[in-house]
Amino acid sequence: MSTPLSTDVVIIGAGPVGLFAIFECGMLRLKTHVVDSLDAVGGQCTALYPEKPIYDIPGFPSIDAADLIANLEKQAAPFQPEYHLNQQVMGLEKVGDKWRVTTDKGTVIDAFAVIVAAGCGAFGPNRPPIQGLEAYEATGGVQYYVKKREDFRGKRVVIAGGGDSAVDWALSLSDVAASVQVVHRRPKFRAAPESAAKLDELAKAGKIELVIPYQLGGLEGENGKLSGVIVETLEGEKRTLPADVLLPFFGLSMTLGPIADWGLNLDHNHIAITPARCQTSVEGIFAIGDIATYEGKLKLILSGFAEAASAAHGAHAVARPGEIFHFEYSTTKGVP
Amino acid sequence: MSTPLSTDVVIIGAGPVGLFAIFECGMLRLKTHVVDSLDAVGGQCTALYPEKPIYDIPGFPSIDAADLIANLEKQAAPFQPEYHLNQQVMGLEKVGDKWRVTTDKGTVIDAFAVIVAAGCGAFGPNRPPIQGLEAYEATGGVQYYVKKREDFRGKRVVIAGGGDSAVDWALSLSDVAASVQVVHRRPKFRAAPESAAKLDELAKAGKIELVIPYQLGGLEGENGKLSGVIVETLEGEKRTLPADVLLPFFGLSMTLGPIADWGLNLDHNHIAITPARCQTSVEGIFAIGDIATYEGKLKLILSGFAEAASAAHGAHAVARPGEIFHFEYSTTKGVP
Repeated sequence: MSTPLSTDVVIIGAGPVGLFAIFECGMLRLKTHVVDSLDAVGGQCTALYPEKPIYDIPGFPSIDAADLIANLEKQAAPFQPEYHLNQQVMGLEKVGDKWRVTTDKGTVIDAFAVIVAAGCGAFGPNRPPIQGLEAYEATGGVQYYVKKREDFRGKRVVIAGGGDSAVDWALSLSDVAASVQVVHRRPKFRAAPESAAKLDELAKAGKIELVIPYQLGGLEGENGKLSGVIVETLEGEKRTLPADVLLPFFGLSMTLGPIADWGLNLDHNHIAITPARCQTSVEGIFAIGDIATYEGKLKLILSGFAEAASAAHGAHAVARPGEIFHFEYSTTKGVP
Repeated sequence: MSTPLSTDVVIIGAGPVGLFAIFECGMLRLKTHVVDSLDAVGGQCTALYPEKPIYDIPGFPSIDAADLIANLEKQAAPFQPEYHLNQQVMGLEKVGDKWRVTTDKGTVIDAFAVIVAAGCGAFGPNRPPIQGLEAYEATGGVQYYVKKREDFRGKRVVIAGGGDSAVDWALSLSDVAASVQVVHRRPKFRAAPESAAKLDELAKAGKIELVIPYQLGGLEGENGKLSGVIVETLEGEKRTLPADVLLPFFGLSMTLGPIADWGLNLDHNHIAITPARCQTSVEGIFAIGDIATYEGKLKLILSGFAEAASAAHGAHAVARPGEIFHFEYSTTKGVP
């Protein structure tokens, strides 16, 4: 075991709500360590839709997800959080008066309180139910994220799905790929109207082929090297699309992962909390953001922000039980 | 009585939380009318500290109060709220299946739901207990707000108080006033450290006189024209400061005003709500922001934002009882 690190609060999850929890803890002079399984802060905002505008962050008529994350990181920075990225939290146990958090990379952190801000938990792509999928995943014949557009230059790309990701990547990759075919079971795409209109335009111009109404049926290839994607209609009519890469965009599945084994009361795959201080069923463990649930819960980033403030106050009571706490607005009112 | 206006939701109070409630109602396709006793939107942010930076709005490492208000107004604008400013809400009564709100200017609005976002209620300055104060208030010899710095050019100004307002205005007016004296009963000022340091600097340079430890004792003058401010120590030692204007900055007092008579359950001068939907003890009436209280309540603007979202959902259930409600993130996730 590594020598345990020591801090006031461990925050699990570095999405927008976890980042704001750093700030709120910092305002109460609580030091924080932050663990996230992704290799960058921002959670889904960074990993899935960095350039997507969000309209319901108070004070921003519109802000791109990546900009929101950059702002929140900057707001948290003065409190010097220590980030442990690219590692998943595994164990949680009480050691003396602290909670010991361990990760799959062997990091060990002792803290008075733990704030779980893990969003959808350990999230991953919904994988299509196709035989022999794993072999092609291993070789890059099937991929669920586009990390670098350039990797697709000159490739024959098949995209499956009808949401924003499918449409946006079809538009983007049509510039570099040898061919782009979009497989969707319905004529209508659930995407931003301007993007959907652009897709139609490129389809009419012959730059993208819309393969509709089809769904995925199977894969063709040898030794993990993809050569074709088999698609079929509901009536069983089949086609084979020659392909180097298949990009299925069927959304995300969430699993709580190891968090499910920590003895916290759960409610439909979420962590049950009492809203006053976002306390879970275990003292010193708090949960905020999408992973937390309570009566009236709205899964909004802005609700998660308010929960971060509540949980920080809860963590303060645990970490500094003897301290008389003078709470102030960040902008104090005039006083004599 | 004027012909009643008709809408979905009346929002009482156009401070930051009331403004965001317009947006949240709008996202749920609820139309709003907004009533505020001040002559501009923004509540305290606009009236009291427009140029003061706020540090705990999520996503803004720092934002001036006036800029936050401008952003929130812009964010609400697409939903075309109707503002009724410079009038105070007086009556609330049930008429048919709607609530009828009347103001002191005779505006009458019928709505399915009312969201009270009245902040500190009808707020006003704490007035010092000095005999004959009213006569000087009427002539401008005693003022509680600085509307225009220029009005103080060449004047002998006495400022009383030890908070941010006292310090900030002392610094600001020292440039234009003939003289600035600051009366405070303690040597320590409760102000931002950099402002307090600047005050000391200007005091050493002889540009501001700190009259410490004194408090206000009385006023001198004739026919409402102020000529001097009498100050005294706890031991009874007196001084008279020659003055054209006295600016007492002793914070704000709040009164619920007519809201106290609406039959809502109150708790220490605040409106008691159940947090799930920010519902008061009366169906269809919601309360959010500083005026609302519940277990664990934090008086933060960001908490008020989350409450605005909750109340909008509560108002939606009242205004559209039959409507099946499909709730989505503003940024939808990738779906097949």
